[in-house]
Amino acid sequence: MAFDTILIANRGEIALRVIRSCRELGIRTVAVYSTADRDCAHVRAADTAVQIGPGAPRKSYLCAPAVIEAALRTGADAVHPGYGFLSEDPDFAEICAENGLAFIGPRPDVLSRLGDKAVARALMTEAGLPVLPGSPGTVDSAAEVSDLAARIGFPLIIKAAAGGGGRGMTVVRRPGDLLPAYRQTRATAQAVFGDNRVYLERYCDSARHVEVQVLADNHGQVLHLGERDCSVQRRHQKLIEESPGPGLHRELTRAMARAAVRGARSVDYTGVGTFEFLVHDEGFSFMEMNCRIQVEHPVTEAVYGVDLVREQILVAAGERLRHSQEDLVPRGTAVECRVNAEDPDRDFAPSPGLLEEYVPPGGPFVRVDTHGYPGWRIPPQYDSLLAKVIAWGPDRLTALDRMDRALAEFRIAGPGVRTTIPLLRKVVAHEVFREGKHDTSFLAASGL
Amino acid sequence: MAFDTILIANRGEIALRVIRSCRELGIRTVAVYSTADRDCAHVRAADTAVQIGPGAPRKSYLCAPAVIEAALRTGADAVHPGYGFLSEDPDFAEICAENGLAFIGPRPDVLSRLGDKAVARALMTEAGLPVLPGSPGTVDSAAEVSDLAARIGFPLIIKAAAGGGGRGMTVVRRPGDLLPAYRQTRATAQAVFGDNRVYLERYCDSARHVEVQVLADNHGQVLHLGERDCSVQRRHQKLIEESPGPGLHRELTRAMARAAVRGARSVDYTGVGTFEFLVHDEGFSFMEMNCRIQVEHPVTEAVYGVDLVREQILVAAGERLRHSQEDLVPRGTAVECRVNAEDPDRDFAPSPGLLEEYVPPGGPFVRVDTHGYPGWRIPPQYDSLLAKVIAWGPDRLTALDRMDRALAEFRIAGPGVRTTIPLLRKVVAHEVFREGKHDTSFLAASGL
Repeated sequence: MAFDTILIANRGEIALRVIRSCRELGIRTVAVYSTADRDCAHVRAADTAVQIGPGAPRKSYLCAPAVIEAALRTGADAVHPGYGFLSEDPDFAEICAENGLAFIGPRPDVLSRLGDKAVARALMTEAGLPVLPGSPGTVDSAAEVSDLAARIGFPLIIKAAAGGGGRGMTVVRRPGDLLPAYRQTRATAQAVFGDNRVYLERYCDSARHVEVQVLADNHGQVLHLGERDCSVQRRHQKLIEESPGPGLHRELTRAMARAAVRGARSVDYTGVGTFEFLVHDEGFSFMEMNCRIQVEHPVTEAVYGVDLVREQILVAAGERLRHSQEDLVPRGTAVECRVNAEDPDRDFAPSPGLLEEYVPPGGPFVRVDTHGYPGWRIPPQYDSLLAKVIAWGPDRLTALDRMDRALAEFRIAGPGVRTTIPLLRKVVAHEVFREGKHDTSFLAASGL
Repeated sequence: MAFDTILIANRGEIALRVIRSCRELGIRTVAVYSTADRDCAHVRAADTAVQIGPGAPRKSYLCAPAVIEAALRTGADAVHPGYGFLSEDPDFAEICAENGLAFIGPRPDVLSRLGDKAVARALMTEAGLPVLPGSPGTVDSAAEVSDLAARIGFPLIIKAAAGGGGRGMTVVRRPGDLLPAYRQTRATAQAVFGDNRVYLERYCDSARHVEVQVLADNHGQVLHLGERDCSVQRRHQKLIEESPGPGLHRELTRAMARAAVRGARSVDYTGVGTFEFLVHDEGFSFMEMNCRIQVEHPVTEAVYGVDLVREQILVAAGERLRHSQEDLVPRGTAVECRVNAEDPDRDFAPSPGLLEEYVPPGGPFVRVDTHGYPGWRIPPQYDSLLAKVIAWGPDRLTALDRMDRALAEFRIAGPGVRTTIPLLRKVVAHEVFREGKHDTSFLAASGL
């Protein structure tokens, strides 16, 4: 292996996830942590841990200089950014390179182009991928917005060009709401992403969110690992993901996979990446690309038998992929449920607190990725994801029955700590979901 | 499903394992427990739990009337015996039937014939399976023993006909040790199994223990799910198992699989079963058949993507297997390590006690089957198996690296509690084992 030591510029379950693949490759690991995360599992799991700042993300996990300094101080030769935080920041990738650190992800110029969703849309249109009707680029004036909206029609969605993670998006259903929504989204985009540019796209009410996993090396090999359906969402946040997508025609998923590979090739993409598509009545449309490992990557791993983080690391080290498209054969169905520490009775507000009891499920064909452990106090500073439960089955219904078993088995208790498990179990048991007939409007429409 | 409620006549990890498959099938579960097991995880996991006696196994888990009464009282329509305890007791299977309870296992007559290892040897010889030179049946006199030994040669092994689980066996290397060993083994067999009959077989010093998993329904379908290598043993107790067997010629394993299917057919076997073979310089020889689910079944599940306990239940309910031999395609390698609560510094004596800290490993391609949880006190009455860690990889070395990662991650602490994890890690890292060149003498010879 070309890497001796990898610093993981992240926290929680994904930091732990990366540490696991590093260990299996015989690579030394460096964790970084904020003062709020002193006792987090990723700190305990790494070979070395460096405190990089206080609990506020901007002063620790988002603070590139602190991360770089920790890497240099500990002799790391590569940085794995996980997801979120600095993972898609081209400047960070650039600074890593300037400091002689391999950034485990695509090149800075690729991050830069694809990170701008308006640019990504244009690039993929050029590469021949279908997109929904929308603005050719970002829109800068109310007049232009009104003009474009008339051509696109309603409903439409206003999206922040620098957005991501389901934030900075507003659906507009009537012309009268257009300009207020435009101003609001720009303001939000400026506040959240420091970039007020937005673009427009037609909005589909009953569409499926289906994404394709790609994996590419630095030697021209680009592979796909099938699709994931992530249509169970609450406020654009994914709750449940699965692979393969239920009830999708094989012709459609093949076309999407081909489109993703073509799109990746067109930008010389390297590493793991995800093409997010909307599947609607007229086919599928490219939405955006995520240039990092995703939260829901384990369902693909379970179905394909491939460790995606290991592949990321090997690709970043310059190795050739040892897979070919032909030997990537999916088996069965895998489903992931995100167990968040949130209070269903307080509109799913985060419910941090002490985990007095914490026994994740186990047994056949169940995987749990979690940084939780008994006696750990969930800090209030970070997102509420506590555990990912992944269940595999030879067919979808067996996987869902297994998921319900696993969720029922999960013991989590502590003062004030509530979780999304009851909601997840209701979804998994819901007829519409079991029949695979749900779309992105399902959760809101179901009344769950 | 034909079954509404299944009583699990066992404890610990295997009881929990069965409960999991029942839940996934929508079957209600009844746990039984001794007073020593009040807080055991299988009791917490079941829908109903019935205390059936004190800690001594003969008065609880081995007490057929107590188990039957619990089943009748709770309205169970089937009994799953797990492994050990009553699992291969033809009388118990008979009593279940007499009480209108489906016994999830082979028919009593099959259990009876195959449970006598001397009879099983004769039956399989008849069916055309190769066996080592040995006595045609049990031997009843010192004169007969001397006579046979002269023909078989040394080393030979004296085995209890009613034996199992690696007990009631004595290796004899010199003629002078023969008769004392014969008397000793008879006495042990009488004490442990209540049956002093023994038989003789040639002993191989450097052989591999390789077993074939079979699965048969009541409609004439008999399938195999490849082999498991269980050559890492200490005093005939398996420590590490894997599938497929490393470095075995495909011709050999195919012949073994065919032999196992032929053997199963010859006795009209139903359910899951295991043919244990010795692989030696001249080929392979049948040793015995285990008529139950085995401790090491998860490695087969991981490689074939089949839930063997689920299959057991469906077969017992009269269903046809939905698999064919062609669609049972193995993928990669899976390894299981048995984590026992034993003290390496006291010759691996059981080290029961309070689990103050207990965090099993997780993440990609790792499965843990355990009844341990934080705050549970391991009782001294039962065997020392605390957890099974199963790691899968696309190839054997990746699986071994993953196993080491998982074992390193396992946090177990409590006053007086020691485990086999340090030993297991040494084996997993050992060159001879990594090269797959070990046989049943490896552990003793390695000095670990």
